[in-house]
Amino acid sequence: MTAAAQPKPGDPVQLRHVRISDPFWSEYGRLIREAVIPYQYETFHDRVPGVEPGHAIRNLRIAAGLEKGEFGGFVFQDSDLAKWLEAAGHSLTTHPDPELERKVDEIIDLMAQAQQPDGYFNTYFTVKEPGKRWTNLTDCHELYVAGHLIEAAVAYYRGTGKTRLLDMMCRFADYIGDVFGSGEGKLPGYDGHQEIELALVKLYRATGQERYLRLAQYFIDQRGTDPKFFHEEWKRRGRISHWSPVPSHKAPDLPYFQSHIPVREQDQAVGHAVRAVYMYSAMADLARVNRDESLAQACRRLWHNITRRQMYITGGIGSTHHGEAFTFDYDLPNDTAYAETCASIGLIFFASRMLRLEPKAEYADVLERALYNTVLAGMARDGQHFFYVNPLEVWPEASRRNPGKHHVKPIRQGWFACACCPPNVARLLASLGEYVYTQTTDTLYTHLYIGGTAEVWLAGNKVAVAQESGLPWSGQVAIRLETNAPAPFSLALRIPDWTDGFRLTINGIPVAPSDFCIQDGYVHLARTWHSGDLVQLELPMDIRLVRAHPQVRANAGKVALVRGPLVYALEGIDHEGGPLAALVLDKSVPLAARFDPELLGGAVVIEGGALREQEDGWEDVLYSTAAKSAVPVPLRAIPYYLWGNRGESEMTVWFREH
Amino acid sequence: MTAAAQPKPGDPVQLRHVRISDPFWSEYGRLIREAVIPYQYETFHDRVPGVEPGHAIRNLRIAAGLEKGEFGGFVFQDSDLAKWLEAAGHSLTTHPDPELERKVDEIIDLMAQAQQPDGYFNTYFTVKEPGKRWTNLTDCHELYVAGHLIEAAVAYYRGTGKTRLLDMMCRFADYIGDVFGSGEGKLPGYDGHQEIELALVKLYRATGQERYLRLAQYFIDQRGTDPKFFHEEWKRRGRISHWSPVPSHKAPDLPYFQSHIPVREQDQAVGHAVRAVYMYSAMADLARVNRDESLAQACRRLWHNITRRQMYITGGIGSTHHGEAFTFDYDLPNDTAYAETCASIGLIFFASRMLRLEPKAEYADVLERALYNTVLAGMARDGQHFFYVNPLEVWPEASRRNPGKHHVKPIRQGWFACACCPPNVARLLASLGEYVYTQTTDTLYTHLYIGGTAEVWLAGNKVAVAQESGLPWSGQVAIRLETNAPAPFSLALRIPDWTDGFRLTINGIPVAPSDFCIQDGYVHLARTWHSGDLVQLELPMDIRLVRAHPQVRANAGKVALVRGPLVYALEGIDHEGGPLAALVLDKSVPLAARFDPELLGGAVVIEGGALREQEDGWEDVLYSTAAKSAVPVPLRAIPYYLWGNRGESEMTVWFREH
Repeated sequence: MTAAAQPKPGDPVQLRHVRISDPFWSEYGRLIREAVIPYQYETFHDRVPGVEPGHAIRNLRIAAGLEKGEFGGFVFQDSDLAKWLEAAGHSLTTHPDPELERKVDEIIDLMAQAQQPDGYFNTYFTVKEPGKRWTNLTDCHELYVAGHLIEAAVAYYRGTGKTRLLDMMCRFADYIGDVFGSGEGKLPGYDGHQEIELALVKLYRATGQERYLRLAQYFIDQRGTDPKFFHEEWKRRGRISHWSPVPSHKAPDLPYFQSHIPVREQDQAVGHAVRAVYMYSAMADLARVNRDESLAQACRRLWHNITRRQMYITGGIGSTHHGEAFTFDYDLPNDTAYAETCASIGLIFFASRMLRLEPKAEYADVLERALYNTVLAGMARDGQHFFYVNPLEVWPEASRRNPGKHHVKPIRQGWFACACCPPNVARLLASLGEYVYTQTTDTLYTHLYIGGTAEVWLAGNKVAVAQESGLPWSGQVAIRLETNAPAPFSLALRIPDWTDGFRLTINGIPVAPSDFCIQDGYVHLARTWHSGDLVQLELPMDIRLVRAHPQVRANAGKVALVRGPLVYALEGIDHEGGPLAALVLDKSVPLAARFDPELLGGAVVIEGGALREQEDGWEDVLYSTAAKSAVPVPLRAIPYYLWGNRGESEMTVWFREH
Repeated sequence: MTAAAQPKPGDPVQLRHVRISDPFWSEYGRLIREAVIPYQYETFHDRVPGVEPGHAIRNLRIAAGLEKGEFGGFVFQDSDLAKWLEAAGHSLTTHPDPELERKVDEIIDLMAQAQQPDGYFNTYFTVKEPGKRWTNLTDCHELYVAGHLIEAAVAYYRGTGKTRLLDMMCRFADYIGDVFGSGEGKLPGYDGHQEIELALVKLYRATGQERYLRLAQYFIDQRGTDPKFFHEEWKRRGRISHWSPVPSHKAPDLPYFQSHIPVREQDQAVGHAVRAVYMYSAMADLARVNRDESLAQACRRLWHNITRRQMYITGGIGSTHHGEAFTFDYDLPNDTAYAETCASIGLIFFASRMLRLEPKAEYADVLERALYNTVLAGMARDGQHFFYVNPLEVWPEASRRNPGKHHVKPIRQGWFACACCPPNVARLLASLGEYVYTQTTDTLYTHLYIGGTAEVWLAGNKVAVAQESGLPWSGQVAIRLETNAPAPFSLALRIPDWTDGFRLTINGIPVAPSDFCIQDGYVHLARTWHSGDLVQLELPMDIRLVRAHPQVRANAGKVALVRGPLVYALEGIDHEGGPLAALVLDKSVPLAARFDPELLGGAVVIEGGALREQEDGWEDVLYSTAAKSAVPVPLRAIPYYLWGNRGESEMTVWFREH
């Protein structure tokens, strides 16, 4: 049952073989293990005062028949538990913890009792709407929940070797395979929220069972074909939705669900951003595993559309909070952005799978951008406050008093009722090691510069890799290799898009241009490596003054500061005396980077000068022909991911160049 | 019954004494008479193909018992009819038309049959919810509809001398006076949509009956007092609203209705913008008629807040479409503005009443600004297409594809189901003559420069005033006076805020500085006038490059072009080859005004130069450190009120100065 699928070129170096030990990232790992995972566990038991109950345990107990009561929470409430289980599984992979493992096993016990005889698992439908299974795929997230449970099962199996949850979820997946498909008596549908597709690929990898791969492929290929499943289903349901019992003439909005046309024909990212990137991730998985070139082409087109037309400089995606969705090319408003934390996590999933499909640095560049900026911004340094929305410009009073900006919060919020982002951050950061390296039989690709160790087999040799990295503050990277014997393989090092050059030494000796080649953004060092070889890479980390495409109206005349992987932001608290919009970059003052040990645990700030347009003479005038006078003031930018940690104030990533 | 109230200083010169004959404005009068009024009349009979039925006649016939059927339209549907009747009344005042008068009398016949024995009139409650009168003042617009009916009755009485409708509405008003008040058994409430208050002042003026003034005062004084009427009423109703039959924990939002605190304590314009300015208009009326200084102070504070903090340069108000509402100081987003046509009409009402209270040019400046820009922009030149929303920046694709901008239409729409703005434009423009002059016993104030004639009594002399005006294209104004005898009085001429000086002659001879004084923005010419005296005023109409207060983030680094009363806009159709946001004013090219006879009936355009940032090299790049290259291109701005008449394209009022 659990014979893993054969490795394929581009496979990630799995989490169990990677240990992160890094001055920047280790702290985040600790936060996930010591704050986020325990905190959410408490919410599942509805015992955190002042926080919306998580309902998870109670729903399980009711579904298991151990307790009477009403189902609590959203129709997709089980997914919070699933994401937590996945995070716990990843955490146990790298940091064994018998107490955590015991808690998970207790939950799995309850889950086993809540699972239905045919393998079905969903506490909402078991408790609240028995008999309504699979009647509203459009709205009810049934397969989405299943997907998260499957991801959890795979992670927990990888973390502990225990197969109980994996077996339970295989039974569930097998049952799903019986229900869905094109055969007689089968349901020719798919879920309103994509997730099961990428989960089934993981299940295939963990078990080697190709039927899971085929089922994922079915969901992907069936989506968007005629007749449109969501419209047919809606008519069968009497034109009602899960959210409103009143029949409506408004059929489900297919682009929202990326189900308007078959996925291979899609070339614009549309609709709910999280749904979109989860689906693209599965498409990239299937393109690789099945060597499916038309699917790969669709992935490349969608990747291109997102990253060249619809992505914020922070790696945020989703320009509108209406439907948490993509809008259209170059529409990137800073102050009404949605840029959900979960969507950037999904973009990281997509990017990592594109890297496995074809190692091109641009995928890792975006992955890194989304990780260091939007994802990190999403969580406060206590692990208990989160941004769901990651705007690039905030005017706190507008967030309160202009309803079009109510979704834009000026400070991180406590745990939400719809707790999608926090456990998503947890599972991503708990599995961060998996994003650092991929390999082929004879090449090790380093995508991220994060300190720690990895063990890999390359061309028949076991190689231990020890990386040290100064990121995000400096571009000094050192990689030491240990092998049991001289080992011929290629080490491919990503040259990020944020650097203008690099310096490379092996054992202290500069590498001659004839001794490496650069391909798709990676420096390939092909040689026979010896134990103790030390590769040192220096990536100059200049301050970059970045502009946006002229079609991006929101950024006309503006610049953003970028240094290394970090996007910077101005905050009102550092620029008191007027709005940030009144500041204009003073090019006569050089910009300088300085490590400020006092700033929120220490961070590199960028300092320079600005001219501030004065309000003198404007006290009682709204419009005037008067020229604005300006005075020089200091300019100070902090890493975007740290914004909103010093109380409410204005923030902007883009500011006036002229 | 119909002995008018005594004139008061500052009274407008009434519509029947003013005839507009003006190269610019006469055409609009003709459009209202020949297109808008007849067209809406047809909609009332539900016989305009492709247009939402107006329901008016059918609702009346059903309420009158002449026909069976269901009530059609909104709860406030009668108000469309009332505004049309008012427009017809104004039109008949200046342009008698027996056929129109016959049509109105037919409608009044029906209305008489639909009026209830106790004087109540409202087809919705008569037909659809008999017995529910006055149970939901918050949502149901009952007194709002009554107010519009009263305004219609006064206008029709003034236009024709016929008293039937006026008498009917006096009965209705008397009945309202029996229902509302602080006495035992009376309802201590007021309407969710202010309007009755200003209407009752008009009814007082037309009839001289002080009880109508007292009732208006009651509604104004009662509003916002404790306990909050809308909350009490909501609890009595079982916490439901007109819009949703499901009880809610969400009580009515009092600031939306300007009923959060007593009106005399209000100093910030909040909530639904039309409701607000209708209320402020009544407050200004009452302040003047009752010499009520604390109410006058509240009016001045609210005026100040709107015009110095919350008004678009076009005279638009209402920064958000959520609740069609004010937001807060300096929050004036251009691309998500609401700036409803009706709200600017209400601002004109407020301004004209402030002028009556105290003749200060700033009130007329705003009145003129709103009239020439937002109100005129609201209507297409066919009288059948309208903007409800008057944005200052439009990207047509964003209007279609970013849901946060769905309310911003790039071209004028046909008649709407909720037809509030078109008949409001009609009644304003049909009564435009009333906004030109006000007078005291010995001073005639000229607020607007609009050609035509007026007859006034000044210090015992009948004076005929004939004005010619070059506005909005030139600032040449001539006023010829005819008197039956030499007449000592003061002619006060407004010096607009858009001019830097003026030249003044009487009978061709320059007026010496010792022969006039300037007070509150008016030049006062006090002398004994002789028949045939000719005053010529030249108001230089330079192109003005206007900037906004540094707190207005949306306009940082941007300028707008203003010439005379007109605000200008750039349109994409005149600047093809890139977005308007890529244009930067080229100060090396002088700006010049030129009359373009080809542009939409002829208009002065402003031409100059811009530098356009090029897209070369950006084809496949979203963010880059590359500087943007720019090429010089012609700049062409057209009057804002004409935008959106040449097909869909981008539009912006504010553009980059640097």
